[in-house]
Amino acid sequence: MRIRTHPTTDPDSSVPGSIPTPSLRNAYAGRRVLITGGLGFIGSNLARRLVRWGAQVTLVDSLIPEYGGNLRNLAGLQGRVHLNLSDVRDRHSLPVFVRDQHFLFNLAGQTSHMDSMNDPETDLEINARAQLSILEACRRHNPAIRVVFASTRQLYGRPDSLPVNEDHPLRPVDVNGINKLAGEHYHLLYHRVHGVRSTVLRLTNTIGPRMRIKDARQTFVGVWIRALLEGAPFEVWGGEQLRDFTYVDDCVDGLLLAAASDAAAGEVFNLGGPPPVSLLRLAELLVAVNGGGEFRVRAFPADRKKIDIGDFYSDWSRIHERLGWKPRTTLRAALAKTLAYYRKELAHYL
Amino acid sequence: MRIRTHPTTDPDSSVPGSIPTPSLRNAYAGRRVLITGGLGFIGSNLARRLVRWGAQVTLVDSLIPEYGGNLRNLAGLQGRVHLNLSDVRDRHSLPVFVRDQHFLFNLAGQTSHMDSMNDPETDLEINARAQLSILEACRRHNPAIRVVFASTRQLYGRPDSLPVNEDHPLRPVDVNGINKLAGEHYHLLYHRVHGVRSTVLRLTNTIGPRMRIKDARQTFVGVWIRALLEGAPFEVWGGEQLRDFTYVDDCVDGLLLAAASDAAAGEVFNLGGPPPVSLLRLAELLVAVNGGGEFRVRAFPADRKKIDIGDFYSDWSRIHERLGWKPRTTLRAALAKTLAYYRKELAHYL
Repeated sequence: MRIRTHPTTDPDSSVPGSIPTPSLRNAYAGRRVLITGGLGFIGSNLARRLVRWGAQVTLVDSLIPEYGGNLRNLAGLQGRVHLNLSDVRDRHSLPVFVRDQHFLFNLAGQTSHMDSMNDPETDLEINARAQLSILEACRRHNPAIRVVFASTRQLYGRPDSLPVNEDHPLRPVDVNGINKLAGEHYHLLYHRVHGVRSTVLRLTNTIGPRMRIKDARQTFVGVWIRALLEGAPFEVWGGEQLRDFTYVDDCVDGLLLAAASDAAAGEVFNLGGPPPVSLLRLAELLVAVNGGGEFRVRAFPADRKKIDIGDFYSDWSRIHERLGWKPRTTLRAALAKTLAYYRKELAHYL
Repeated sequence: MRIRTHPTTDPDSSVPGSIPTPSLRNAYAGRRVLITGGLGFIGSNLARRLVRWGAQVTLVDSLIPEYGGNLRNLAGLQGRVHLNLSDVRDRHSLPVFVRDQHFLFNLAGQTSHMDSMNDPETDLEINARAQLSILEACRRHNPAIRVVFASTRQLYGRPDSLPVNEDHPLRPVDVNGINKLAGEHYHLLYHRVHGVRSTVLRLTNTIGPRMRIKDARQTFVGVWIRALLEGAPFEVWGGEQLRDFTYVDDCVDGLLLAAASDAAAGEVFNLGGPPPVSLLRLAELLVAVNGGGEFRVRAFPADRKKIDIGDFYSDWSRIHERLGWKPRTTLRAALAKTLAYYRKELAHYL
């Protein structure tokens, strides 16, 4: 059953938020924070906020070319964070990283659904095995650390009903979803059994400055924006599917709230965004915000159709009620900020 | 909520079965069958049946001392099966094993819940990563093979209600459950996306000849029987918990039906047994069947309590309705046959 409540909602509709920034900021000032995947899209935006807030930030990133890490994401932060280039699969270094940290944002991951189907064992090594190694390191060397794990809406598979809340059955439709599910379970288990304080956030489509635009491995919005800025038409596959989008600053709010809130220990929360739109509506909005551009609609490719989840949007009421999180950025504003960033920075992301 | 429907049922109650043996036998006569974990408890009982039915059987087993493999389990079959001692983690040998097989019974696994908590990465390597390698080998080298994966009731975690059917939420309570869940998902995904014909059977407590009795890594019933035959009192932890038991011959029926039935492709089925009993009742019955013996009841140890699932018994109506499977062995008969085996064979299993 599909319930479509929001498909025609105005993307300009305001979503006033109430993130308790001053007290949240105090939770991080002067504290030691480790971010795996720290050169990636979300990790680097999180690092920038934390540096502004006076945290001592260590980034671990492998810079695997197909993943999200990009040195440009650190522009302006040089000398203000500690950067360690390494792979979270290197288990022997993990105890050194987690020791003495107050917070761990566990964002390193393989994100491409297609890559996970073509090379399932690599996806497993990064999204499951390395997560277990990280948690073992925490358990043995720093059981008081506060951990947030970036999970994904992909775990839900094709929704039974919309919007999807955290109690929806978990039916991953690809290897990536299966391994992320294992990673999520490990985090909750290590909280329950070993007392390692973990929170899981299930992210939906996150967009904003510093996302990968070279290809669609992180989000299809990336390749749309790249094409638009290069003056080429972009491709919309299908077009009818509903999706929700979180602006990266709102995602960072959620990560920071989850790690700092006692009420978040051992919990799973969806993040979400302003009311969902169809891909067609998103494409039109993007062209409008850009002040021009072209796109073509084509049928969904067969190999992707096998692992497609259909319509999806998140119910984020649980994190709103428990932690006070809300998306604060409209979809139009999110697209405008993202386009503005890549207009200046395009050359660094190709 | 707990629903206790059967706790006082007479364990002698008859459970007449109707396994279509003649036609099932024909499905295997002269066919090539691979069994991973083939020297183990269930694998070796399956191999014995298949040899009797005229199949060409290859066994792969690592003989890791803490697991279920035991060369004695092959007594009398020497020269009638092909035995390859190796580990399913050795991915390069897998294509050779799966090529040209008609059936694969994928039974190799780490089964100890406590071991999975103490050495989670080994559990992951065997129960998740190696499963992915096996399925990749099937996909690339023998996509027409029929696969049955031995999964576990442990995936359900603490039941919301009893008996537990296949639609019950999956909430594994230990690392073993998380990794078996991933293994199960891979099998279903490879069916759905790549057309590798897989069936998942979720086993409950399986007992019978050739089970591990050296310690409780496979089942607590093993150490009970060992103590009883050695004239020592055995320990019952708690005692009130309800459990169901499948006799190994009935489990073998289920495996053979699942691999041979077209209706089983891409499906998940619980196996189960005669009406459940409390552990205390099981202990009393075991002593009665043995004609004597002693046991002591003690409180559940704290480290096990953290990952205990409370009462559990399976609803096996789905496999009954779809494939005609039924447990044919009463609990009393199962215990009697098992005791009779170990009275003769004890020395080979210590």
